[in-house]
Amino acid sequence: MRLEDIPTPALVLDLGILKRNLAHMQAAVARHRDVVLRPHMKTAKSRAVAELAAPGHGPITVSTLAEARYFAEGGWRDQIYGVGITPQKLDAVAALNADGAAVKVITDDAEVAAAIAAHPGPIEALVEVDVGEGRGGVPPEAALEVARALGDRLAGIFTHAGHSYGGRSDAEMTAIAEVERAGAVAAAEALREAGLKVRIVSLGSSPTALHAAHLDGITEVRAGVYMFGDLFQAQLGTHAEADIAMTVLASVIGRKPARGALLLDAGALALSKDRSTEKAPHDYGFGKLLDIDGLPAFDGALVTRVHQEHGEAAPMPMLAVGAKLRIAPNHTCLTAAAHECYHVVDGGREVIAIWERVNFW
Amino acid sequence: MRLEDIPTPALVLDLGILKRNLAHMQAAVARHRDVVLRPHMKTAKSRAVAELAAPGHGPITVSTLAEARYFAEGGWRDQIYGVGITPQKLDAVAALNADGAAVKVITDDAEVAAAIAAHPGPIEALVEVDVGEGRGGVPPEAALEVARALGDRLAGIFTHAGHSYGGRSDAEMTAIAEVERAGAVAAAEALREAGLKVRIVSLGSSPTALHAAHLDGITEVRAGVYMFGDLFQAQLGTHAEADIAMTVLASVIGRKPARGALLLDAGALALSKDRSTEKAPHDYGFGKLLDIDGLPAFDGALVTRVHQEHGEAAPMPMLAVGAKLRIAPNHTCLTAAAHECYHVVDGGREVIAIWERVNFW
Repeated sequence: MRLEDIPTPALVLDLGILKRNLAHMQAAVARHRDVVLRPHMKTAKSRAVAELAAPGHGPITVSTLAEARYFAEGGWRDQIYGVGITPQKLDAVAALNADGAAVKVITDDAEVAAAIAAHPGPIEALVEVDVGEGRGGVPPEAALEVARALGDRLAGIFTHAGHSYGGRSDAEMTAIAEVERAGAVAAAEALREAGLKVRIVSLGSSPTALHAAHLDGITEVRAGVYMFGDLFQAQLGTHAEADIAMTVLASVIGRKPARGALLLDAGALALSKDRSTEKAPHDYGFGKLLDIDGLPAFDGALVTRVHQEHGEAAPMPMLAVGAKLRIAPNHTCLTAAAHECYHVVDGGREVIAIWERVNFW
Repeated sequence: MRLEDIPTPALVLDLGILKRNLAHMQAAVARHRDVVLRPHMKTAKSRAVAELAAPGHGPITVSTLAEARYFAEGGWRDQIYGVGITPQKLDAVAALNADGAAVKVITDDAEVAAAIAAHPGPIEALVEVDVGEGRGGVPPEAALEVARALGDRLAGIFTHAGHSYGGRSDAEMTAIAEVERAGAVAAAEALREAGLKVRIVSLGSSPTALHAAHLDGITEVRAGVYMFGDLFQAQLGTHAEADIAMTVLASVIGRKPARGALLLDAGALALSKDRSTEKAPHDYGFGKLLDIDGLPAFDGALVTRVHQEHGEAAPMPMLAVGAKLRIAPNHTCLTAAAHECYHVVDGGREVIAIWERVNFW
């Protein structure tokens, strides 16, 4: 099967670019002695990708219980479920762990920590610390209260400098990475000074993982979007535009010469309505037009509008209805989530594999 | 099973509200003699909903080949696939029709029309006409060229006044509905004057279906979003906020008293990043907070920010982690598409059924 033959819209994943992106991150983390890479599978949601990103069933991060189950059954036992846990979800985690997994949860809430401590099943937790993102987590100085409530279920400290996505230069990224590191280490030290055992000190985002000057005191780094890349990450300097491994294959379904536009069968569902690049230096609308080979053949052409199943691309030459194109996404995690599987190519148009995804919750 | 026991995030569909919305639209279309309602299943993507919306396997509209296949196998033979067809997709449609379905396609392109005419399989098509939306379709006066290219595969005229979503009063909606009707009828008349047989004259959107003063010359009306409703449609006056049948059930995963916010386990994936209400009179962020019973118990509370799996709701009281809430969506079609199934309730918290969806393409 070749890309020309695939029903559209569909995801295309370029294996060569994926491997290059994985090697780049592995090398970036290998700069730091005794720091392990714990890839975040929220982007790929695929065992086939995990074989490459976390080979030998290495440690991973997950964002849903569906991922936790899917990867545990696939052999990836060492997981952190990186979204604040609720007491109601503990039974499901404990059941996985009773079957041989080691899914660790996170919390920033002393009441939840007490529920974890009291749970009869095997569950460990990390205390989520906020180093400036302003999403989940307690300030580093407040980690001790939550950690104490966990009792002997304490596994470590967890943080995520999501505000690195607001950084606009390598220097800013390096500065945010240092704040992330220092906050996590300060929280870990406070716990240790209180006599608690802190095994894991975990941080990460793709930008800070690549830009950290040093990671003293950190045991592991998490990152996910680096595997595929996207137009937003490219503008952060995380990678080049040519390093975007995942694109959407679409067909022309209409021609509008009066406005220099083509209608495509990839719209709001196939691309997502994410507009991450809206506030980036270059606004790519709902995606950048590439040719069927993934090359930037249409200067300045964007997906300018989307409806549920329609996308409008402009300015474009009037290709035939049925002609196939590819679209680089704003935010690869959200675009991928709209699709059932990847059509894997390796630089050409030949589809060498179809890789499933574990969607939903 | 009760809503308290469902893993979150999850879709909740209220059967009583759904039935009320269906009856409202059925009554609106029944005002017009000899006009058939052809519900658009792109929103619900569910046979169980189609049993109510298009009872007796009545005519339906679909937005993907996956829907066409799923509903044809479920007994809904009379379909219009309402997204411009490509020559490459004709074999799939012909195969369904050879199995007993009557899936009609649409096109606005004379080359595609010629490909339809030349296809060996049983396929009929409608000419897509643009009545002002500026998406797909030819102007009414240009329909004849495409219709002629279809030869004896011509089934009729198809239009969609999607720009009715920009209307802000009943009077504007009624005016747009009349432009939609007049354009479709003008195109049909031009074809008939040229000696062509025009069996179907199809138009529709939820707003124009409800607001049309008369539908002389029209044979059928399409609409989809009316089944579930959403915050955007409520502001168009299509229905009341209390008529929103589909909501997202979420759990509190964190408490941020300093900013009066709760973190929820419904984020960009579970809600979608659709911001339809951004330009409406009232901007509801990424959704409006309701209590577990679907009632507006939190004055002015919205989902103000989303990450992949995190949503932030404010201003909110500091409920316990694990507490369950519901969120009314901006755009029900996109929110529903992120989920595998509906948890059906009938006014209470008891889950009386789980209804599947046909996602992807």
